[in-house]
Amino acid sequence: MTKPLRIALAGLGTVGGGVIRLIDANNALIARRAGRPIEIVAISARDRAKDRGVDLSRFAWVDDTTALAHHDDADVVVELIGGSDGPALALARSTLAAGKGFVTANKAMIAHHGLELARAAEKAGAALKFEAAVAGGIPVIKGLREGAAANEIARVYGILNGTCNFILSKMEAEGRDFAEVLAEAQALGFAESDPTFDIDGIDAAHKLSILSSIAFGTQPAFGDVVASGIRHVIAADIAEAAALGYRIRLLGIAEDSPHGLFQRVHPHLVPVSHPLAHVTGATNAVVAEGNFVGRLLFQGAGAGDGPTASAVVADLIDIARGEFGPAFAMPADALASHAPADSGDRRARAYVRFTVTDKVGVLAEIAAAMRDAGVSIESLIQRGAMPDGSVLVAIVTHEGPERSVAQALEKLRGSQSLVGQPMWMHILS
Amino acid sequence: MTKPLRIALAGLGTVGGGVIRLIDANNALIARRAGRPIEIVAISARDRAKDRGVDLSRFAWVDDTTALAHHDDADVVVELIGGSDGPALALARSTLAAGKGFVTANKAMIAHHGLELARAAEKAGAALKFEAAVAGGIPVIKGLREGAAANEIARVYGILNGTCNFILSKMEAEGRDFAEVLAEAQALGFAESDPTFDIDGIDAAHKLSILSSIAFGTQPAFGDVVASGIRHVIAADIAEAAALGYRIRLLGIAEDSPHGLFQRVHPHLVPVSHPLAHVTGATNAVVAEGNFVGRLLFQGAGAGDGPTASAVVADLIDIARGEFGPAFAMPADALASHAPADSGDRRARAYVRFTVTDKVGVLAEIAAAMRDAGVSIESLIQRGAMPDGSVLVAIVTHEGPERSVAQALEKLRGSQSLVGQPMWMHILS
Repeated sequence: MTKPLRIALAGLGTVGGGVIRLIDANNALIARRAGRPIEIVAISARDRAKDRGVDLSRFAWVDDTTALAHHDDADVVVELIGGSDGPALALARSTLAAGKGFVTANKAMIAHHGLELARAAEKAGAALKFEAAVAGGIPVIKGLREGAAANEIARVYGILNGTCNFILSKMEAEGRDFAEVLAEAQALGFAESDPTFDIDGIDAAHKLSILSSIAFGTQPAFGDVVASGIRHVIAADIAEAAALGYRIRLLGIAEDSPHGLFQRVHPHLVPVSHPLAHVTGATNAVVAEGNFVGRLLFQGAGAGDGPTASAVVADLIDIARGEFGPAFAMPADALASHAPADSGDRRARAYVRFTVTDKVGVLAEIAAAMRDAGVSIESLIQRGAMPDGSVLVAIVTHEGPERSVAQALEKLRGSQSLVGQPMWMHILS
Repeated sequence: MTKPLRIALAGLGTVGGGVIRLIDANNALIARRAGRPIEIVAISARDRAKDRGVDLSRFAWVDDTTALAHHDDADVVVELIGGSDGPALALARSTLAAGKGFVTANKAMIAHHGLELARAAEKAGAALKFEAAVAGGIPVIKGLREGAAANEIARVYGILNGTCNFILSKMEAEGRDFAEVLAEAQALGFAESDPTFDIDGIDAAHKLSILSSIAFGTQPAFGDVVASGIRHVIAADIAEAAALGYRIRLLGIAEDSPHGLFQRVHPHLVPVSHPLAHVTGATNAVVAEGNFVGRLLFQGAGAGDGPTASAVVADLIDIARGEFGPAFAMPADALASHAPADSGDRRARAYVRFTVTDKVGVLAEIAAAMRDAGVSIESLIQRGAMPDGSVLVAIVTHEGPERSVAQALEKLRGSQSLVGQPMWMHILS
């Protein structure tokens, strides 16, 4: 047994505690698999006094988190502080500049600063790994970077936010509305007290930009991801989708096309025959479509201390084995820079649900707007009045450019017939 | 760009042709991802004259396959001949002895000789990789060896044979019997003219013994896998299972337990709420249950030239990147040797279907045999007579040791009441 891989750990929240517990529990097994032990030697967190349920006295305590980068006994720094900038980014920069390996679960930081950090890692010949940043315990970065590496990827997409999937599948199972289920998810600890990052699709967009970079060999470009969340999905949308043979899931999708690279996070209608339609609860799942391998699916727990710790320690095992290379699957300078594609060029089938007043001519007005914008309607369902007297009209379009749907909705903007905003969702092909 | 990784390719069947086509098609992308080009330099197959639809004139032709091991221009030999022994094994031995990397899709050879070859690879410091040997294009060996490496694995199981899953899901969708669907699968090229290896579970057992070794850190031991296939599943079993909330799948399962390591391939009843129940057609899927990551699922195409070539070239990319280590996740000498566990000790719920004569007292006879063996019955369905006058009795037991079910069936052996063998299937918990 050669000398241990020595870890300095920054951040002792849920995941940090999980990493310590995992290394304690599976220590001998990890040493057999990695070829040498993995040992935590130093730790740092905001509050030294807090009881975290694990014995911390055996580790050196470092008050200044950034100083972990220069802790002489450590080979690798594990960053579990979070936040795209601030102490996490400072620690990443100093660790890599010091030529040490850096492992993180920080999706926001990698989405925003991944390219800079990858360059720094290459310059120093150090490892930069972030499996835990996307889809928790699921080895999907490895799956793309290595498992599917022989393929040109046409699309990578999936359920990247467990909170949203928990809420949507609960709405689906119980026929309840968004706000009610969100409140329950918050009470159960499945959703944050400020749930914006999750439910507005920002968390999923961070993850998507990372997957996209690895799949397509492009520079991570979080700013190019168009994102909307699940706030405006109502129980009736789920019921209409079900009647049409679909389930609603918040999907992140990155897709190569003649128009460029589309990167987007939106609620989608997923055909019940598709495996993602059967992913319920806080589970995550990612699909990659390769030109030789076809459709690959990776599924598992997308969050939680155990799964996230599993991904962090998998990265450490790779480093202990010496099995690591460029973070984004190819050298940073080989990553292409892309102008984002215009969503309007994307061709797809769409679901649009209008909430309208119950009066003569409303349907004609909607149909005319669709016709004038060149949108071809595949099916339309109108249901009797809701408790407040309004009526739902759900439309599924034939495949066409998204620009046309946007134009139709623009024509209808401000119409006295509409109650609130129409809900537009894409249909997964 | 550093110097290319040069490949000698043995075997030019479907998969061999796929590897050539993939490297041709994705050549520039592979070089960007691998850090250097991957080039085929020499080939060997039985019949030089055969038209394979690809231009072979650019490669050196070698008549004696074993001589590829000593082809001076090659860094790695890719073996796609097949067969557990014979030329494939001779080539593996000479390649590794010559200190060159060896990549194969040959599950039978790895199941039978994996330990010997892993030792030879380590001695030579050469790569031995076989992602394509299990579940075709799905990076499940990588998923276990690396992605889930931080976890103690409790169970690894899955749908490992596409032919059987194709047949079972077609029987399920169309209510037809095994023999008829097999004949159709053969006509369509989804089943071999001699389908024994597939439908009797031997192919799945090869794959399971490889997965099991990596998951549990044990020496691959194909001889310890207990296997039966799908030959005796009838349409009525599928219907009874459906009525009880299950679908029938041929599963390979390796499970760690206080009694030792169980390795088995049998048709199972899978609850419809489980993702494997939704895997249809020739698709493969593998589940690993880790003590921190929870349940991970990997799903995709389990066979075919494209997916298999994708896995072969993924191995080559790992080698080109220098990211490889011990083939079975830990050094061969660290792999434990295990006496196989006794199936009788395994506790599970079971499905047993009897075909019986339509006369008084048959049910009492079966019920008495179950009682005497200590098998507790959870539910029993008896259906009216089949066209030949026989009657089906389907029983689901409570959880208990498999030994008891075996004893009950032993008591009933030779009974005049039974028409043919009872069908015993395990229920996935």
